[in-house]
This record gives sequence, structure tokens and C-alpha cells, in this order.
Amino acid sequence: MALKTLNDLFEDMLRDVYYAEKKLVKTLPKMAKKASSDDLAKAFAHHKSETDGQVTRLEEIFEMIGKPARGKTCEAMDGLVAEGSEIMEEAEGASVMDAGLIASAQAVEHYEIARYGTLIAWARELNLPRASSLLEKTLKEEKAADELLNVIAERANPIAQAA
Amino acid sequence: MALKTLNDLFEDMLRDVYYAEKKLVKTLPKMAKKASSDDLAKAFAHHKSETDGQVTRLEEIFEMIGKPARGKTCEAMDGLVAEGSEIMEEAEGASVMDAGLIASAQAVEHYEIARYGTLIAWARELNLPRASSLLEKTLKEEKAADELLNVIAERANPIAQAA
Repeated sequence: MALKTLNDLFEDMLRDVYYAEKKLVKTLPKMAKKASSDDLAKAFAHHKSETDGQVTRLEEIFEMIGKPARGKTCEAMDGLVAEGSEIMEEAEGASVMDAGLIASAQAVEHYEIARYGTLIAWARELNLPRASSLLEKTLKEEKAADELLNVIAERANPIAQAA
Repeated sequence: MALKTLNDLFEDMLRDVYYAEKKLVKTLPKMAKKASSDDLAKAFAHHKSETDGQVTRLEEIFEMIGKPARGKTCEAMDGLVAEGSEIMEEAEGASVMDAGLIASAQAVEHYEIARYGTLIAWARELNLPRASSLLEKTLKEEKAADELLNVIAERANPIAQAA
């Protein structure tokens, strides 16, 4: 697909993020299952249902711009999930597993924070205030999810206490 | 590699980030070449030299923990760079290219912000204050690079003006 206009870029990025969020919907329950701390498992479960809503918002935006809601392989998200899976396979012991899961989830959140930041800027430039407002809601949720993971990491801090 | 302790996780993540930064050292000059705006080309060139310094800091930390400085394929960074290359191939016209380059670079910065945030938390837990302080310097640079890209995007905003 040739990217000739900002509209093209916006649609292309929307498809990238749509793929990424749908992949995350499938990945978060696996992460919740691996989590030892209840707080962490709950955070993943909660973010799974938030992510469902984010997928719906993206579908609304595709409709607004008159394009089919189609994902496009997001190699960055594939890479992030692959790294997360590797940690889930290789980590041993509850505290190491949880620390690894938190790190993986925060890398995913930051990917999304970057992408939604870009999409919001482009939606504004394209004069799509309704799309921009939906994207801002999602960005707020992603930042809150990242912040909650910080809190859980600090609260647990089991390895430092054991050291 | 089995990840049994936080030390293992820390070393594993250090190797991931080492690979990522070395890949970025090779990628930034290509991005600078593709940039139309002088500000953007300069920002990429400046961040390239910062990244050289960040690689050196990581090597110092490997030395501190008595491990060889070896990278480990970072699939997330490979994915981010692949997406950036795709935009560089497909974008047409100066303003679309620059908008795409900025988006790609910000996704990379956010990946690094997430990873350095994690490494700093782990370095503190492992009681490695000297490593933590080096990592904090790098994190500050990554955040400043992301912020500068925001400023350049807003300053240019050529597509919104043309729309």
C-alpha cells in the first residue's frame, strides 16, 4: 500500500494497532494464568476487558473513516508477544515469573502509548475530533494500566526483600 | 537460558537492550537520510551519537556484573525496525515521510523507555546503584528524544496546514 497522504498513514496505523489489540486480547488471559500474585492476575484480567472495549473503539473509527476494520500484521507486537512468551517459558519461581510478566506487559503498554499518541496527533490534523476523543480514552487506559503495573511491582518487590 | 533469579532476568534484559541499541545505531543514519526536515535529520543524527554512548554504558554495566557484553536477538526491536523500514519504502512525499519517520522513532523510544524503566527498578532491587545511575542517564535521554520528536511534529505539522 503506497502511503501518499496522512489519511493513508492514519488508516495504516489504525490497522496495525487493531491487529495488536486483538492479539493482546488473546495473550492477556495466558499472562493472567501465569501470574502468581492475585493483584497481577486481576490487573491482567481487568486490562483484558478494557482491551475488548478498545477493539470496539477502533472498529467505530474504521466506520467513521469509511474503511473496513481489518488488521495488518504488526511485527512489533508479534515481537513483544514472542519475548513475553519466552519469559513465560523460561522464568522459574513465582517472584521471577511475576517480575518478567510485569516487564513484558509494560513493554506492550508503552508500544500502545506511542501508537495512540501518534494516532491522536494525526486524527487532530485530519480534523477527526470524534476519533481523537475515542483514542484519548484508550490512551488514558493504557497509561493507567502501565501505572498500575508500577504500583504492583513496587508493592510486591519480593526479590529485593528476599535479597 | 533458565531465568531462576532476578540476576538472570536483569542480565537477559540487558542483552536484549544491548542488541536493540546496536541495531538502532545502524538504523538511525538511514532514517536521517530519509528525513526531509533539517530539524528531524539533525535530531536523528544527534540521537545516533547519544545511542553510541548508551551502548558504552551498557558495556560498563556488563563489566560491573562480571558478564560478557553480548546481545541477544530482540524480536520486538526487529519488529519495530521492520515496521519503520516499511514506512520508509512506502511513504511518498516529504511531509508523509517525516510523519511516518517520527511515528517509527517514537515507537522505538517508547520501547526503550519501558525497558530502561524495568532495568532501573531491577538494578535498585539488586542493589546496583552505579548501574542504576547509568541507566537513569540513558532513560533521561530517551525521554528527551521522544519529547523533541513531539516538538518537531508540532512545529512542522505541514499536513494539517495543507489540509
